[in-house]
Amino acid sequence: MIIVLKPEATESEAREILDHIAALGLRPLHMPGTERVVLGAIGDERVLGSLHLEGYPQVESIQPILAPYKLVGRELHPHDTIVRIGKVSVGGEGFTVVAGPCAVESLDQLRDTAIAVQKHGAHALRGGAFKPRTSPYSFQGLALEGLQFLAEVSREVGLPVVTEVVEVADVDAVARHADALQVGARNMQNFRLLQALGHCGKPVILKRGMAATIQDLLLAAEYIVSEGNPNVVLCERGIKTFETATRNTLDLNAVPFIKSRSHLPVIVDPSHGTGLRELVGPMARAAAACGADGVMIEVHRDPAHALSDGQQSLYPEQFSALMKGLRSIVEACGRTL
Amino acid sequence: MIIVLKPEATESEAREILDHIAALGLRPLHMPGTERVVLGAIGDERVLGSLHLEGYPQVESIQPILAPYKLVGRELHPHDTIVRIGKVSVGGEGFTVVAGPCAVESLDQLRDTAIAVQKHGAHALRGGAFKPRTSPYSFQGLALEGLQFLAEVSREVGLPVVTEVVEVADVDAVARHADALQVGARNMQNFRLLQALGHCGKPVILKRGMAATIQDLLLAAEYIVSEGNPNVVLCERGIKTFETATRNTLDLNAVPFIKSRSHLPVIVDPSHGTGLRELVGPMARAAAACGADGVMIEVHRDPAHALSDGQQSLYPEQFSALMKGLRSIVEACGRTL
Amino acid sequence: MIIVLKPEATESEAREILDHIAALGLRPLHMPGTERVVLGAIGDERVLGSLHLEGYPQVESIQPILAPYKLVGRELHPHDTIVRIGKVSVGGEGFTVVAGPCAVESLDQLRDTAIAVQKHGAHALRGGAFKPRTSPYSFQGLALEGLQFLAEVSREVGLPVVTEVVEVADVDAVARHADALQVGARNMQNFRLLQALGHCGKPVILKRGMAATIQDLLLAAEYIVSEGNPNVVLCERGIKTFETATRNTLDLNAVPFIKSRSHLPVIVDPSHGTGLRELVGPMARAAAACGADGVMIEVHRDPAHALSDGQQSLYPEQFSALMKGLRSIVEACGRTL
Amino acid sequence: MIIVLKPEATESEAREILDHIAALGLRPLHMPGTERVVLGAIGDERVLGSLHLEGYPQVESIQPILAPYKLVGRELHPHDTIVRIGKVSVGGEGFTVVAGPCAVESLDQLRDTAIAVQKHGAHALRGGAFKPRTSPYSFQGLALEGLQFLAEVSREVGLPVVTEVVEVADVDAVARHADALQVGARNMQNFRLLQALGHCGKPVILKRGMAATIQDLLLAAEYIVSEGNPNVVLCERGIKTFETATRNTLDLNAVPFIKSRSHLPVIVDPSHGTGLRELVGPMARAAAACGADGVMIEVHRDPAHALSDGQQSLYPEQFSALMKGLRSIVEACGRTL
Repeated sequence: MIIVLKPEATESEAREILDHIAALGLRPLHMPGTERVVLGAIGDERVLGSLHLEGYPQVESIQPILAPYKLVGRELHPHDTIVRIGKVSVGGEGFTVVAGPCAVESLDQLRDTAIAVQKHGAHALRGGAFKPRTSPYSFQGLALEGLQFLAEVSREVGLPVVTEVVEVADVDAVARHADALQVGARNMQNFRLLQALGHCGKPVILKRGMAATIQDLLLAAEYIVSEGNPNVVLCERGIKTFETATRNTLDLNAVPFIKSRSHLPVIVDPSHGTGLRELVGPMARAAAACGADGVMIEVHRDPAHALSDGQQSLYPEQFSALMKGLRSIVEACGRTL
Repeated sequence: MIIVLKPEATESEAREILDHIAALGLRPLHMPGTERVVLGAIGDERVLGSLHLEGYPQVESIQPILAPYKLVGRELHPHDTIVRIGKVSVGGEGFTVVAGPCAVESLDQLRDTAIAVQKHGAHALRGGAFKPRTSPYSFQGLALEGLQFLAEVSREVGLPVVTEVVEVADVDAVARHADALQVGARNMQNFRLLQALGHCGKPVILKRGMAATIQDLLLAAEYIVSEGNPNVVLCERGIKTFETATRNTLDLNAVPFIKSRSHLPVIVDPSHGTGLRELVGPMARAAAACGADGVMIEVHRDPAHALSDGQQSLYPEQFSALMKGLRSIVEACGRTL
Repeated sequence: MIIVLKPEATESEAREILDHIAALGLRPLHMPGTERVVLGAIGDERVLGSLHLEGYPQVESIQPILAPYKLVGRELHPHDTIVRIGKVSVGGEGFTVVAGPCAVESLDQLRDTAIAVQKHGAHALRGGAFKPRTSPYSFQGLALEGLQFLAEVSREVGLPVVTEVVEVADVDAVARHADALQVGARNMQNFRLLQALGHCGKPVILKRGMAATIQDLLLAAEYIVSEGNPNVVLCERGIKTFETATRNTLDLNAVPFIKSRSHLPVIVDPSHGTGLRELVGPMARAAAACGADGVMIEVHRDPAHALSDGQQSLYPEQFSALMKGLRSIVEACGRTL
Repeated sequence: MIIVLKPEATESEAREILDHIAALGLRPLHMPGTERVVLGAIGDERVLGSLHLEGYPQVESIQPILAPYKLVGRELHPHDTIVRIGKVSVGGEGFTVVAGPCAVESLDQLRDTAIAVQKHGAHALRGGAFKPRTSPYSFQGLALEGLQFLAEVSREVGLPVVTEVVEVADVDAVARHADALQVGARNMQNFRLLQALGHCGKPVILKRGMAATIQDLLLAAEYIVSEGNPNVVLCERGIKTFETATRNTLDLNAVPFIKSRSHLPVIVDPSHGTGLRELVGPMARAAAACGADGVMIEVHRDPAHALSDGQQSLYPEQFSALMKGLRSIVEACGRTL
């Protein structure tokens, strides 16, 4: 860690900080410069968090050298993690497609959509039973009944199920009915939920928050892993920017960046990442081309009557076309679909 | 509501939508133009949500005319709401200062800080018992013990207490110990928590999310109010932008904008909004000058040893100076401090 | 165009606006609703710009129905434009790779780099003679001498040359030495420069500004085309967001979105779009996969000693690997490299 | 400067960099840590720019210790600069109000507006003759004729004139007719224009770009000052964010932040910073309260018929009210209006 002092800091103030560093077992460094005094701490700087040096009045800035996450980083764990969702592997040679409706609306709607996505090659089924909605007047999901429909249709079509959990009290129920639990963008920093998921015994798909940096996302994953659940799949789904032509700005830079820093699998959600049906196919292909381990796609048997996110949901025949276009890209990247 | 169709939409597709609009009791309007067909719906367009027109393949865009919130808007409720936190009124003639440490660290730390802020004129005490932290390795708060310290110190110094709640299961305990419950930026769209706060019987301070538009904030407040709790204070605390010199970008535009659209009181948190101790005073004054109903200020008896947010916490003597500078601005605006 | 009036607008104020609309030859529409009066104008609404309705005190908001650009839009010009840069076509069946150093530093440096990129399959050479730099103390380019080196090396290696122009007074000189003129992100709204390029007789590569929406970019292109130069290639190169792990956030959503709205070719600059050497290859592949017509890549014979942008410049052997990886994606998309 | 090497960097690569640092006259520091080797350079690190260390393949990151600007910084020049525009001082005890129409539309429109703003207490007149407009189909200003009107009205009403310059070739003409030259947000990084303004002999008002960090703004000012013109006034006018309720997000944090780092005066443009007429007054007061040296306000004799920016232009009577509200805040801050 590098600590830059303000110009007015005194010798004794520098000395005090160096003593604290030494007391924690790190090697302190004193670098008096022409305009600023710079201090350093050599060793595992993460223990310095307990000093809260950023609060010192004579500290101008602090620059960590090491990443603040450990368990999700590649340094201690260089090899790719493969997460198993039911019988499906995420993160290995294969490219994983999770597809299904935004929300579970009825048993029929879910079954019809599930049959369609299974037929066209999806590996897992998605569908929301608990829907976080911006307005209290929007459809909020079928809750427990939705979970039951998911479990039932999963058995029928033979696809594992991914569904969102929004509240600690629901974790057990969701874990009983689903093969993987999804954390939505709005809950990425709901730390109590993350901690609960560290104990749920099922894999977690963690979506990036709309204002979350890549480091924030990795630290959110660290919450889950540090509680004992190593099976975390990260999901890039677009961030908030000034651009309004699309619902979000899909940050595909994040895919190769995360892959270089973390061993966790990374998938992409081009449905939320664009918000526009006609952009989902091209951006799914782009995700595959830059190294993502899979995609998550909203499909509805009848998007014109979807209760949520209809404008970004694919018709079954559009999903079929997407799978064909995706296959050639995935194979060009040396993977299998 | 205005519905713009794609150029390729047919007459019968337009007709189908108009029929749906009429069936819901609104007056449909057909406006065929030279390059696009535009449809309209006159009446309380919020019932149109059930049509999910955005999912129709021939719909290019939808433009609502009315705000999607009702209860928090000025149209149905033109007069300013005044929220009472303990014996303190927020939103009337007075300008309210809530001050205290970021986190409750010990009974002594809280008591010393509370005595200091009370002496210099704060109207309410803040302090976090449950701390949402970006890293799992940071101090997470004293939890229930912290709540007990808050209640005890509140009685001693005679200031009402505001503290954050992060989880549905904690709402009752927090409501028992505090005079107002705060929802942090990361939980602004934790809708289950908002719904629970609609029933908690205590006022709520709702902080704007880091990626939340003003409309998102008002809809989050609508969740609480629509569940039966009209006592909501909104809090601008900075949004995420590309600027890195400050921790967040404090969006003071939001203050007069919200005041023109909503009857709820609005306060400002310049501590999180800037992240830098020396900017807190100037931005607190700016908040008062543009019409905020109060400010929330982090103060610590010893910021150099604070367990969180030390770099943005004021020393007690800095808080004293802030109050003096603030008083002249508040009075220049015709209010009292 | 849809005009929403404020609640307090009177009947006669609405009437005045409707009369103005009719006087301009459009069909006015009066839609009195329950909470707002909405007005409409049917016809080519772009003539309404002269009314400046946004300034009326009783106008709450204005919602255009048509895109504000015409010449660059697909509506009047549905077929893809192919732009020729020297002997290279941009926008047709082929996928175009423009490569070379960020800045021309010397004749040798340029020649060595040009020979390398030509050998590995680049179609055109890039290199900056006029360098816009954030700091006045950074290398600002070789100016006219740089242009001469570019022309000389272009002849030697047989690649057309693309270089940036930053000032109206330089347009003629740059047009004499280069096959295409590039407008950098910082000049995307330098409208006098755009107008001058409308008369330069050479194709223009127009880079998206760091704070420019897609619509802003298309309107900037409209400046050039409306002055008489139809040969414009658009370039996505990343926008400014809160993410700091990468230099910019490459907005690949923009590629399929623009292709659906405009007939102009679109290329992508993953070097500036990421700012990190190891992300350039993956993001070039992603650009090809989502439908871009080409990429622009910074390559340097010796990036460790580059005078600008070394951290995002590829070594020649990295460029060779990029071309191999790109070829399989381009072919999977049914195009040729 | 602190240089962090990648984990795979060798001893001899570290040594090479240290030798380069020493060769430039700085003191090199070698700090081998447990997971990374960190290097340091003590002395005026700005000379290290010539090493372009960011391009080295073994360099992970570079962290400067000193600000990259010198002449505009407070370290070498601790006292506030006062800039004189005609007979008006910007940056001292007084608070300066520049007001007038967005664009000069006619001699009469300018004169009427100028008389109004002068009567209500403005210190200087603004008005654009060269208008950078997003669309080529919008009003582009009266150019030279507009400059002549400005000069004529300036003499008549006795107010100095501020107007925008958009192109190097116009600098002389603008400097002849105006008392200060304004650089608009879109040209903040038009470095050739900045260099030309370094020689123009008149003060410059430099507006912050929509995607410019505070550091970018200070470096842009450094361009002007380093060419010989010390009379630069910085202007915060809002940045681009995800919020769409207002035209821009006015970043008032920038005011006290810049004042702490730079000796240059800072003014605020709440007209562009909000884009909404009713927010201009509150945000002008906020600007004064957080330490700005003045404001720039768009006023039009008849905003409903303004050729540009009507929705953010004040009616003369609104400007009168703004001046009254502002006076009490300015005086509460111990300054004079």
